[in-house]
Amino acid sequence: MRMDYQPILDEIIRIVLKRPSEGVVASYIPELAKVSPDHFGIHLSCLNKGHYHVGDNHDGFSIQSISKVLSLTLAITKIGDKIWQRVGVEPSGDPFNSMVQLEYEQGIPRNPFINAGALVVADILCGELSNPKAEFLKFVRSLCDNDSIDFNHAVAHSERDFGYRNAALINLMRSFNNIQNPIDKVLDFYFHQSSIEMNCKDLANTFLLYANHGCLLHSGKRIITLSQSKRMNALMQTCGFYDEAGEFSFKVGLPGKSGVGGGIAAIHPGYYSVAVWSPPLNKKGNSSRGMEALELLTTKSGLSIF
Amino acid sequence: MRMDYQPILDEIIRIVLKRPSEGVVASYIPELAKVSPDHFGIHLSCLNKGHYHVGDNHDGFSIQSISKVLSLTLAITKIGDKIWQRVGVEPSGDPFNSMVQLEYEQGIPRNPFINAGALVVADILCGELSNPKAEFLKFVRSLCDNDSIDFNHAVAHSERDFGYRNAALINLMRSFNNIQNPIDKVLDFYFHQSSIEMNCKDLANTFLLYANHGCLLHSGKRIITLSQSKRMNALMQTCGFYDEAGEFSFKVGLPGKSGVGGGIAAIHPGYYSVAVWSPPLNKKGNSSRGMEALELLTTKSGLSIF
Amino acid sequence: MRMDYQPILDEIIRIVLKRPSEGVVASYIPELAKVSPDHFGIHLSCLNKGHYHVGDNHDGFSIQSISKVLSLTLAITKIGDKIWQRVGVEPSGDPFNSMVQLEYEQGIPRNPFINAGALVVADILCGELSNPKAEFLKFVRSLCDNDSIDFNHAVAHSERDFGYRNAALINLMRSFNNIQNPIDKVLDFYFHQSSIEMNCKDLANTFLLYANHGCLLHSGKRIITLSQSKRMNALMQTCGFYDEAGEFSFKVGLPGKSGVGGGIAAIHPGYYSVAVWSPPLNKKGNSSRGMEALELLTTKSGLSIF
Amino acid sequence: MRMDYQPILDEIIRIVLKRPSEGVVASYIPELAKVSPDHFGIHLSCLNKGHYHVGDNHDGFSIQSISKVLSLTLAITKIGDKIWQRVGVEPSGDPFNSMVQLEYEQGIPRNPFINAGALVVADILCGELSNPKAEFLKFVRSLCDNDSIDFNHAVAHSERDFGYRNAALINLMRSFNNIQNPIDKVLDFYFHQSSIEMNCKDLANTFLLYANHGCLLHSGKRIITLSQSKRMNALMQTCGFYDEAGEFSFKVGLPGKSGVGGGIAAIHPGYYSVAVWSPPLNKKGNSSRGMEALELLTTKSGLSIF
Repeated sequence: MRMDYQPILDEIIRIVLKRPSEGVVASYIPELAKVSPDHFGIHLSCLNKGHYHVGDNHDGFSIQSISKVLSLTLAITKIGDKIWQRVGVEPSGDPFNSMVQLEYEQGIPRNPFINAGALVVADILCGELSNPKAEFLKFVRSLCDNDSIDFNHAVAHSERDFGYRNAALINLMRSFNNIQNPIDKVLDFYFHQSSIEMNCKDLANTFLLYANHGCLLHSGKRIITLSQSKRMNALMQTCGFYDEAGEFSFKVGLPGKSGVGGGIAAIHPGYYSVAVWSPPLNKKGNSSRGMEALELLTTKSGLSIF
Repeated sequence: MRMDYQPILDEIIRIVLKRPSEGVVASYIPELAKVSPDHFGIHLSCLNKGHYHVGDNHDGFSIQSISKVLSLTLAITKIGDKIWQRVGVEPSGDPFNSMVQLEYEQGIPRNPFINAGALVVADILCGELSNPKAEFLKFVRSLCDNDSIDFNHAVAHSERDFGYRNAALINLMRSFNNIQNPIDKVLDFYFHQSSIEMNCKDLANTFLLYANHGCLLHSGKRIITLSQSKRMNALMQTCGFYDEAGEFSFKVGLPGKSGVGGGIAAIHPGYYSVAVWSPPLNKKGNSSRGMEALELLTTKSGLSIF
Repeated sequence: MRMDYQPILDEIIRIVLKRPSEGVVASYIPELAKVSPDHFGIHLSCLNKGHYHVGDNHDGFSIQSISKVLSLTLAITKIGDKIWQRVGVEPSGDPFNSMVQLEYEQGIPRNPFINAGALVVADILCGELSNPKAEFLKFVRSLCDNDSIDFNHAVAHSERDFGYRNAALINLMRSFNNIQNPIDKVLDFYFHQSSIEMNCKDLANTFLLYANHGCLLHSGKRIITLSQSKRMNALMQTCGFYDEAGEFSFKVGLPGKSGVGGGIAAIHPGYYSVAVWSPPLNKKGNSSRGMEALELLTTKSGLSIF
Repeated sequence: MRMDYQPILDEIIRIVLKRPSEGVVASYIPELAKVSPDHFGIHLSCLNKGHYHVGDNHDGFSIQSISKVLSLTLAITKIGDKIWQRVGVEPSGDPFNSMVQLEYEQGIPRNPFINAGALVVADILCGELSNPKAEFLKFVRSLCDNDSIDFNHAVAHSERDFGYRNAALINLMRSFNNIQNPIDKVLDFYFHQSSIEMNCKDLANTFLLYANHGCLLHSGKRIITLSQSKRMNALMQTCGFYDEAGEFSFKVGLPGKSGVGGGIAAIHPGYYSVAVWSPPLNKKGNSSRGMEALELLTTKSGLSIF
């Protein structure tokens, strides 16, 4: 299949920008609140090397929770399936940082894409890596094939000062012995991980790994096994959008992951990866226009995994 | 792709029957408790007309919750997307008949595949159909292309006598005005709907509809739109296995739906539908051997939607 | 101690009626919604035979949940402490008809004064009495020493038609085997029990039993033991006001029980019983002016159990 | 009333020690786990100056959560009723350190005697006092009229190292802006406050304040108002025993407060205060023999507030 996505992207941006943007830019992290709500960009990267884009696809933004897919991937390369002893694979069915289930389920987070689960993954990386921040950054650069990818330290510190809920979560998990490294070290890694900046092109290129069943497209190097790659996609499908995963699956029909910076990465296994960016978030914490753009993409291309 | 699934099914039954069956046959419905735990069968129906099967694929069993997919399909043919005003599309994240969320979310069930959601769908059918039981049966027979499909009245009455939790759910939803027909009528329809008997072949053939994007394979007749069919598959993917939907998605990677009778129907959109039956259920209420067999199927065939 | 409560009651009514009434009259039972919000009455009956009253103390009203104290008392005379195997003695900490705890705690209600608990007590009475409604009425008349006390059948039937939450609760408990009689019979008894009408004088006189440590003041007859009477008072103290029991205990400092008809009965063990009636309810379902009047009573008399 | 409690205490110790002790000594704080489970002591101090005691009434123990009554008292002397804007007065109905309600209720703890509530009180004292630990100790010594009362620093540090749940609670409340001082400072104060050691005599003498309606018996000095004292007693009645407050109220009928060190302080307003100590705790975290001893005390003396 050699499809031309450019006319579809052109139509999407026309439709999406016609309406006023709904939702509000994330404000709980002060640095993020400064971003203009008017940014909008899409970049789609095909396994057949085709690239399509519209809008602000070269402006960098904070990938935030999208980084949880990347840290999970690195953790899997380190300890494999043992990771599933410390974090589950079920949708949470609750707002994204609820403590209820965590307490009820004895400190084992529902899945690696809620904050609690990503903190456990961060703890694993802090235990496995001698220099976690540097090694994680190196790993992400290798996935993206772009050595200019970096943390935004201002964002990382801005989170640290206001991350009381994450501190609550990690202390609660520590009380259940599901955190093994010093809390401050794990939080510092976690806030840096989330602060990574990419533009739409970088993000789409990074997620080609999951469209390409676990191999880097640019080098052919296998990062995770075929089976691990499928499971990563399954996890994104069921857990990638806080408590709106069902809605995204229902309307878009692709695995993906969103972040409060307004970015969404999604993939069509075997075909392409796509990144969208629009900062205003809906009530569930996902980019409003990003959701709409991806729904238009699968509707207009007639393609979804279902 | 013209794949020969027979050697794979043959291998699956060898592997699965080698181990003692885990789990227990559902006992809360007395009629179901009488079924032998040793039954095991698979039937796989391809869009290209190929049929493959092993084991007890001709013995009828109670499809139970698998019928929720069929009643939802019929309801969608009647009222279309208006249905989503009365039931959600998110995974519940809680055991399959929990009242907590239902109360918290003001009588709107999380999705149509938990009991509360299926009761709302049953209420819709009781309002839309002049003879709900007869018309539902006719609909199911037409999907399956088999006029011998029928209710098991003993099972339906056995449920009715012990269905206090369902009575609790429907009364709670009625208190929130999300039930419009007489409670006894809706429950009677619901218990009959769940009591339908099929064998693996019937069940696989019935679910070809969802592999075939909403058209009957045997007649070419369109039942639901392409978009509705994709959304039905997305719903099965995220919500089809009680609070084990993530696990199924993670290990099997296909949309599907299970029932406490021990049946599971799953589909690979564009390729095939498959039905498995083994009565013993794991702790989450899904067929143990059925889950294992489907995991082996996607692993050994190398095919999943991810 | 021979105290003259009349000046205090006179002052209370002046203060309370000076402000506009806050809250709204219960509307979920249609018959109750017809009552004027302007009624206000107090009647205080002392163990030393003194009687004091102000306002509408002769108008009858629906005692509603206050009847839960009376049905519990009758049940204790029948089966004694065995009752505590089927219902607890802890405050619920949740809104008055929440299902969460009931499900979590396997069908054993937290205490006999939440709806679920009172339904279990009603079930016990339906099992112990050959004619539950007639015998309960006779019991209440004997406590009050007034043979004109009666059910309000219009209110009882009005509840029955809208009692879906109670039907949900009783079905849920039946699923846990904590209900033994036919559900319709128990609900019919329960709705009648709640519909009893009394005026403030009747209500205060009825509750003299608990101020008098378990003996009727008018006849000296012992109804429950000293120990049972103390425990009844303790239960009213910790569980008598839905999720506002702490607030009432904190501000008023007397055991008591409220009903959505706007009545409150309270007692000072060894001294007096008091009934207040004002239909508008606060957000927690307790009479606003009733709470205020009783707070003024203990403040101005300088007397509370603490 | 001049009652001789000595024969009653003598009988209680005979009854209580006849049976093997049930429950286990608190082990989550390592220092507490070292205490012998066989200790048992009672001290009862009357407003009429009478003192009665049996058993180990001179051995010091860690008062733990009993200190929450004392810190609340000091906070009330500092900011009065404004405290109720930051903490509620309702029983929690849930295990003593559950996060569910705290999250649901936006960081306002249910009452000052659950851990979350006591942390808010600790935060208030850290804001109001220039040297919180020293001033709190001085306050407690003045209530007890014993200058040798002190912190047990080993216990305080032992808590600090394992207090992850408290760290989770305080971070969660901080995220809702209900904590104003540095988290480490508040926790340090809280762990010291809880580590205070007293013997039964000290504890009974300290709680005479609440039996004496807010005045010190030894000096006549008023510490809190009559109304504040009554409310303190009401709070102990409804919230003093984690999720066993109803049970204690039901069986004992006195306001009181327990601690995981095995101590319980209770009062009969206007009559006496009593302290019991026995380290093994029941499943709800209250001293087993302590509960039993106090139930025997009110049964055998025939006296309770009800």
